[in-house]
Amino acid sequence: VIESPLQAAILRLLLASAEPVTRTELGLRLGVGRNAVGHEVRRLLDAGVLEAAGFTESRGGRRSLLVRVSAAAGYVGAIDLGATSIDVAITTLASEVVAQAAEEIDVAVGPGPILDKAAAMLRDLLAGQGADLSDLRAVGLGVPGPVAQADGHVVAPPLMPGWNDFPVRDAFAELVACPVFVDNDVNLMAIGEHARGVARDVGDFVFVKVGTGIGTGLFVNFALVRGADGCAGDLGHVCVEPAGPTCTCGNVGCLEAVAAGPAIARAGEEAARTGRAPLLAATLERKGVLDARDVGDAAGHGDLGALAVVRAAAGRIGAALATMVSLLNPSAIVIGGGVSGIGHVFLAEIRTAVYARSLPLATRNLPIVPSALGANAGVIGASVVATELLVAVADVREARWVPIDH
Amino acid sequence: VIESPLQAAILRLLLASAEPVTRTELGLRLGVGRNAVGHEVRRLLDAGVLEAAGFTESRGGRRSLLVRVSAAAGYVGAIDLGATSIDVAITTLASEVVAQAAEEIDVAVGPGPILDKAAAMLRDLLAGQGADLSDLRAVGLGVPGPVAQADGHVVAPPLMPGWNDFPVRDAFAELVACPVFVDNDVNLMAIGEHARGVARDVGDFVFVKVGTGIGTGLFVNFALVRGADGCAGDLGHVCVEPAGPTCTCGNVGCLEAVAAGPAIARAGEEAARTGRAPLLAATLERKGVLDARDVGDAAGHGDLGALAVVRAAAGRIGAALATMVSLLNPSAIVIGGGVSGIGHVFLAEIRTAVYARSLPLATRNLPIVPSALGANAGVIGASVVATELLVAVADVREARWVPIDH
Repeated sequence: VIESPLQAAILRLLLASAEPVTRTELGLRLGVGRNAVGHEVRRLLDAGVLEAAGFTESRGGRRSLLVRVSAAAGYVGAIDLGATSIDVAITTLASEVVAQAAEEIDVAVGPGPILDKAAAMLRDLLAGQGADLSDLRAVGLGVPGPVAQADGHVVAPPLMPGWNDFPVRDAFAELVACPVFVDNDVNLMAIGEHARGVARDVGDFVFVKVGTGIGTGLFVNFALVRGADGCAGDLGHVCVEPAGPTCTCGNVGCLEAVAAGPAIARAGEEAARTGRAPLLAATLERKGVLDARDVGDAAGHGDLGALAVVRAAAGRIGAALATMVSLLNPSAIVIGGGVSGIGHVFLAEIRTAVYARSLPLATRNLPIVPSALGANAGVIGASVVATELLVAVADVREARWVPIDH
Repeated sequence: VIESPLQAAILRLLLASAEPVTRTELGLRLGVGRNAVGHEVRRLLDAGVLEAAGFTESRGGRRSLLVRVSAAAGYVGAIDLGATSIDVAITTLASEVVAQAAEEIDVAVGPGPILDKAAAMLRDLLAGQGADLSDLRAVGLGVPGPVAQADGHVVAPPLMPGWNDFPVRDAFAELVACPVFVDNDVNLMAIGEHARGVARDVGDFVFVKVGTGIGTGLFVNFALVRGADGCAGDLGHVCVEPAGPTCTCGNVGCLEAVAAGPAIARAGEEAARTGRAPLLAATLERKGVLDARDVGDAAGHGDLGALAVVRAAAGRIGAALATMVSLLNPSAIVIGGGVSGIGHVFLAEIRTAVYARSLPLATRNLPIVPSALGANAGVIGASVVATELLVAVADVREARWVPIDH
C-alpha cells in the first residue's frame, strides 16, 4: 500500500526507469535526503511493492543496493479495442507484457458484450499466471473514438455506433474492480511509442495510425495534446477531396474515406475487376474479397495496378501530413497501424509526399519512421497510462496495492 | 537590481497581475513566509523597482500595503515588424503602452536599415518621455517569419528576402544595449491576446493573423507551440488548391496565395475590371489601385462582386481552420491582422465554413471571435515576452535593473 507522496514519487521514477536504481540515485533525482529515501524504500520493500535487484559494481567503496518495482507487486491490464479486433495484455507495473491475447470482434455490437468480452479475456490471462482480478492494480483501455477525460465517456465516435456517451471508464471499473483509464486508441499508441518505442524522449512528434480509420496522437512539449474536448489529432476527418465519397462521419471527402484500409481494399477490387491489376485479380478470384494487405502484397510483387492504388493512398496521407508538419513543426513522424505494414512502398510514398510539400525549414530534420512497437503500441500505451493513473490516484489505498501472494 | 530568485518570483507575479497585491497575498501565492516576502519587497521598494499603491479596504483589522511594479522602474521596448510596416511602442513593465509610433517600410531592404530605423523610433519615443536607451530594460521584437529560438536568427522567411539566417536578436541587442527577445510576429500576437486580450486564461486556442500573409499562433496546455524549428502555426503555406497560383514560398496553391490581403486585392481588381463589381470599379478608377480594405468596403456597401471576393477568401480560410480544429480541438479561435477588419462578412463567412466542416464534438463550444487588442496585439505580445525575458535572465544584473532617475 502506498502511504506517502514520497513513496508515490519513488514509484513514479522507478516505473519510468528501464534499469534498477540505487537509493542514492533516487535521492539525487528526487532532491530528497538519503535517509528519507532509504526509509521509504525499506517500507516499499517490506510491503512487496519493490524488490532488490542486486548490487552496483564495486568501485572500491561500498556496493549499493539496486531496487526496482517488484514483479510480484501486481499486474496491469492493457486493452486495445479496435473497430474489428480486441487486443488484451497483462503486463508488469513496468509495462512489460506478461501474456496477451487477441480476438476478432465487431465493436458495433455495443458496449455491454464488448466490455464483458474484454473482462473475460483479462481473467483468462490472469488465470494463466495463477492469478485473478484481485491481482490487477489498474487497467488502461483504448477505444477507436474520442474520449472525454472528465468523465471517461466515449463521445460521438463515428466508428463505434451505439457507444455514444457510454460511460466506458466507470462501467469497466465495475467489471474489473480496479481503477481504469480510458483514452482514444491512437493517443495510447503515441504514449506507448513515447514511453517505450521509437519516440522515447522526443518532445514534439506526430504518431499516425493507418488502419480501418486514420488518426493521430500528437506530442507537443513532451505532453500529449488531447484538445478541449478530447478529440485532437483527428486527421482522418480532414477534408482532402471536397467532391469525394461520403465518410462514416457524415461529411464528404475525409482523408479516412479515401486512404484508410477499406478505401485501399475498394480501390484494389476496382483495379482487379477492370484488368489493371492482374495479380490482385488472381487473389480476388481465390479469396472472393480483398483487404489492404492483399493490395500491398500484390504491389510488392510488382503488380502495377496494385502499386498505383497503394501510391495514391499514401500520397493522400502524405499530403495531409504535410499540412500537419506546417502547423506543428514536429521533430519526428511515426507511422503505425495495421495498414502501415502493407509494404515499403507505402511508407516511401508518404515520405515523398511530405518532403515535397512542406517548407524546407520544417523538414530538414524530420525523420518519418515506422512504429517500433508495431501491433503492441496500443497495449503498451494502455499499460503506461494505467501505471501513471495508479501513481496519481489521490487516495492510493483504493488501488489496493498489495503484493500478490503466490 | 534583482538580487535573488525570490525577488524574481515576486516580480513575475506582480507583472502577471492586473491589480496591486499585498505582501500577505504574495506570500500565499508563492508559498513563502510573510517575513521573507516582506524583506524582499522592502528591498525592491528601496531600489525603486516596486512602488506603494495605497492600502486595502479596512475590514476591521490593520489595513495592508498594496504594491505594484513601479512606473519608474524602466521601460520595455515593443516592436512589431511587418512586411510593409513597423509598429514601435514603449510600455511599462506591466505592458501598458506609454507611447507608440508606426511607419511604412519595405522589409526587403534588409536587416541593417530596418533595425536602425526601429532603434531610432525607440529612441524618439523614449526622448518624448524625457528618457533614453539607458532606461530601456528589455525589448520584444516580432518579425514576419520563422525564428530559431536557440540563436535568435530568422530562418528562411518567405516574406523577408535578404534576412535569411540573420542574427536579429544579437544585432538588435547591440543597437539598444539591453536584452532582446525575437519571435515570429503572429506568435507574439497570440501571446498578447493570451496575456491581455480575449484569450486571457484560455489554455488551448488558435490565433489567426490575416494580413499580407496568413499565419497562426497556437496555444496548447497554456503554452505557445513553437515547434522543433520555430515554424509551427504556418497555416499560410498549407496547400488548399493543388493547381493554384505560385506562392512567395515557391510552392503552389498555398492558402496565403489565394486568401491573404494581396490575393483579395487582385481578385477585387479582376472583379472590377470585368464589370462584376461596379462600386469597386469606381474605387479603382479613383485610386488607380485596390487593397483588401477597398474590397471589404465595397462589399459592406452591397457590391455583389466585391462580396463574392470577400466570401471566397474567407471561405478558404475557414476551410483551412476547420482542418486545424480537427487536429488541435482548440477551445477558441481568435482572428486578427489588418485584413480581419475589412467587414463583418469576412468573419461571418469564416465562422460558417468552420462550423460546416468540423466534427460537431469539436465545434459545440468553439467561439470564433475577433482579436481584442486589434492592431496592438503584436506590440503588447512583444512587451509581454520582453518582461518575461527580463525576469528569466539568468544573470539578472545584466538587465541593469535600476530605477529611472528623472
